[in-house]
Amino acid sequence: MSMAKTKNLCILLLRLLAFGVTLSAAIAMATTHEKVNIFMIEFEAKYSDSPAMKYFVIANALASVYGLLVPFVPSESVLGQLVLVMDLVFTMLLTSSTSAALAIAYVGKRGNSQAGWLPICSQVPKYCKHASGALAAGFIGTIIYMAIVLCSIHMALNPLLVQKA
Amino acid sequence: MSMAKTKNLCILLLRLLAFGVTLSAAIAMATTHEKVNIFMIEFEAKYSDSPAMKYFVIANALASVYGLLVPFVPSESVLGQLVLVMDLVFTMLLTSSTSAALAIAYVGKRGNSQAGWLPICSQVPKYCKHASGALAAGFIGTIIYMAIVLCSIHMALNPLLVQKA
Repeated sequence: MSMAKTKNLCILLLRLLAFGVTLSAAIAMATTHEKVNIFMIEFEAKYSDSPAMKYFVIANALASVYGLLVPFVPSESVLGQLVLVMDLVFTMLLTSSTSAALAIAYVGKRGNSQAGWLPICSQVPKYCKHASGALAAGFIGTIIYMAIVLCSIHMALNPLLVQKA
Repeated sequence: MSMAKTKNLCILLLRLLAFGVTLSAAIAMATTHEKVNIFMIEFEAKYSDSPAMKYFVIANALASVYGLLVPFVPSESVLGQLVLVMDLVFTMLLTSSTSAALAIAYVGKRGNSQAGWLPICSQVPKYCKHASGALAAGFIGTIIYMAIVLCSIHMALNPLLVQKA
């Protein structure tokens, strides 16, 4: 098997992995919720309480749909030439949404005493644990997309390698 | 002037612009502070209260140092071949830090009633206004870096264009 074919297979496997991870992240975050009673007031923690978490779910859902469709795009078509740019756009989207969600999750965990924001994880520990899992998956998904972009750029910069395939 | 030279000049101008914008973002965020008295308790809002804002200042400061140095890297050297990857890394860094800082700024502006986090911008309006300016600069810096990466990829994918220079 030629070098380029091995690389293409490698990217395909990375894409499948990225699809699984981003889908899990979206589902895990979207399904996490916990009901608690605090001073007789019922309180439900769910992802839609925070715009950052909503953004995280939407970005990961979009990335998983993209990850499912992109292996079927023929690489010689006009769309195929745009795949590197699309990969880049989705890497940015995942980076951005994971960072925003992590920033909010940090306030949820530690609070911010200067701003008077109290941590909420002591009240809703189950919610926080599940959300952390989703964030970890989102982080891994971002890293995999970065690897895909770096691989694609490496292949694009070495046209001889591609032509040998 | 050839097409490739025009493009190189275009990227150089984008880099200078990105340097100015990221430097302004870092300085604007780092120097913003406001002292207020709330119920006789002195309270000072500054960027170092929030890890996300610290990350924003550090990322923009690093990006401006990088933006200042990179035009002096000879494009034929080993370092020159890494410039596209470095551009990508700094684009990610800026995307990530701007998103995290925006997520926290949103809570500062609107609060989050479900989590019981009150907005702070009514107490420290001057701080919020300056921080918004810094965030806008950070956002523009991120967009410029994306444009630089897209330009560089376009040039890398069209080696004939580069060889004609």
